[in-house]
Amino acid sequence: MGEFDLIDSCFAGKGGKPRAFTLLGIGDDASIHQPAAGMELVVSTDASLAGVHWPMDLPVAIAAGRAVCSALSDLAAMGAEPLSCWLNVMAEDTDAVEQMGLGATAALLRHDVELVGGDTTRSPCNALAVTVAGQLPAGSAMRRDAALADDDVWLCGRVGFHASGLQQWLTGEKDGCFVVEFTHIEPLLRQGVMLREQGVRCCMDISDGLLQDAEHLARASGVGMDIELSLLPDWSQLVAELGEAKALQNAAHGGEDYALLFTAPAGKTLDQACRIGRCRSQPGVALRLHGDLITVEKSGYDHFK
Amino acid sequence: MGEFDLIDSCFAGKGGKPRAFTLLGIGDDASIHQPAAGMELVVSTDASLAGVHWPMDLPVAIAAGRAVCSALSDLAAMGAEPLSCWLNVMAEDTDAVEQMGLGATAALLRHDVELVGGDTTRSPCNALAVTVAGQLPAGSAMRRDAALADDDVWLCGRVGFHASGLQQWLTGEKDGCFVVEFTHIEPLLRQGVMLREQGVRCCMDISDGLLQDAEHLARASGVGMDIELSLLPDWSQLVAELGEAKALQNAAHGGEDYALLFTAPAGKTLDQACRIGRCRSQPGVALRLHGDLITVEKSGYDHFK
Repeated sequence: MGEFDLIDSCFAGKGGKPRAFTLLGIGDDASIHQPAAGMELVVSTDASLAGVHWPMDLPVAIAAGRAVCSALSDLAAMGAEPLSCWLNVMAEDTDAVEQMGLGATAALLRHDVELVGGDTTRSPCNALAVTVAGQLPAGSAMRRDAALADDDVWLCGRVGFHASGLQQWLTGEKDGCFVVEFTHIEPLLRQGVMLREQGVRCCMDISDGLLQDAEHLARASGVGMDIELSLLPDWSQLVAELGEAKALQNAAHGGEDYALLFTAPAGKTLDQACRIGRCRSQPGVALRLHGDLITVEKSGYDHFK
Repeated sequence: MGEFDLIDSCFAGKGGKPRAFTLLGIGDDASIHQPAAGMELVVSTDASLAGVHWPMDLPVAIAAGRAVCSALSDLAAMGAEPLSCWLNVMAEDTDAVEQMGLGATAALLRHDVELVGGDTTRSPCNALAVTVAGQLPAGSAMRRDAALADDDVWLCGRVGFHASGLQQWLTGEKDGCFVVEFTHIEPLLRQGVMLREQGVRCCMDISDGLLQDAEHLARASGVGMDIELSLLPDWSQLVAELGEAKALQNAAHGGEDYALLFTAPAGKTLDQACRIGRCRSQPGVALRLHGDLITVEKSGYDHFK
């Protein structure tokens, strides 16, 4: 099978259903689109590489599904309805093309995102770059610079579980209780849209660890934060399984949680999310455990350290 | 310098000027956009890898500029005005990040394309995935499936020169007469817009070699083609430098020419392009030299052979 037939068989017509947004999809030099009237377009892109973003012994189909979901999580963070995906597949061999095709298109189908373009190239290491587009009503996007000093801090989804699963995988405990949190991440797309519709204005997804991303959000908004870690969703489960020290480390710095960190005016009640703290005018992010200020050694992943 | 500072210093605020299309650029989970009324959005993405898309001894800044221009060429082929770029930078080390940043943002600046998003990750090999968006009036895109059986076949730009430059580079002739054609490709953006405005409906850019891409266009349109190679722009220069056999090989199969292959109703006159043949109802693409049918052995690049 030649390059073009291979690409056709792995990608053409796979993924979610055609959308009115897309006037011309796969097959030409570029895809053509027209957002609906009154809607804004939201676009994000992420690269994922074997040995960097996933362990070499993770099946590449699973890795490709994770890569797609990780990109979609950025749309969830803005509160956008996902529409389209463009996929750069960089593959060591034809088997890797097929496996990445299977994993990526299954994730797109699950979230009903149409595959509208991309390319497939030979590569010394398996990798994907995933670009996704979604839409939302003009002016309604949740941004990370919109927190106010009196806002409460909320979390939708859990932190620490992905890192705990990755650690189990890396230590050979491939059927560990957390492993599925690492192998099958799910972007909180429905929840993101719901939060936006409920009037939430400030949100981001947690990919670099709760503390580091909270600092990003706080700095972008010109506020500070107090976060009480015992209020984290399923905190007691994390402590019961890992002990307090490891639970703190994974919750604060684990990364790739794809939970939604957001703020809302004090007193607001929200379903499917936990209030975990409070913004303040003084900059910086303070972590507390049962009220006491604590320090959790920072080890957020830096690609170039 | 940490990851985030490095990315800031290499990319933030570089590239072309801000556009009304982009409401929120680099710095959040995603960028936000709104196409102008009556316009359609055109999107393309391309991955480029060291050792696959460029020789390992090509300076990575030059390679990054080529990667950006290659993606922009897809917008030229549709007749779109370029607006925005999202950049996945996959880099072996911080020096490669800086060099790719320099090369990519210089190309974006040259074509006035705003850098609105992307990511930077450590990678076992230097690579970029480049996603670009442009706009054009609704319904006016030049597509590869719109050729008619009576159309003339035209070429804007030259074929064979890029391959000749690459061959000189690979054989150590780094100051060879064609090398600049390989190191500095230019997407024919202005020409693409002009052709669209002149009513051209069918166009593609040549990346896989003239013959292979002519076959793609002919098949997509359900037509065939006769192409007279002696009518190619600067054909005599190619023959004088390389001899006829090599000139034929590079012109028909060289690849990465980023010339625009298009069709137009017979009798139309067009500036800045050469008429090189004629469509016909019978499928297939026939190459001729001074009227005689010829066969040029096919060696178009297949990523998985």
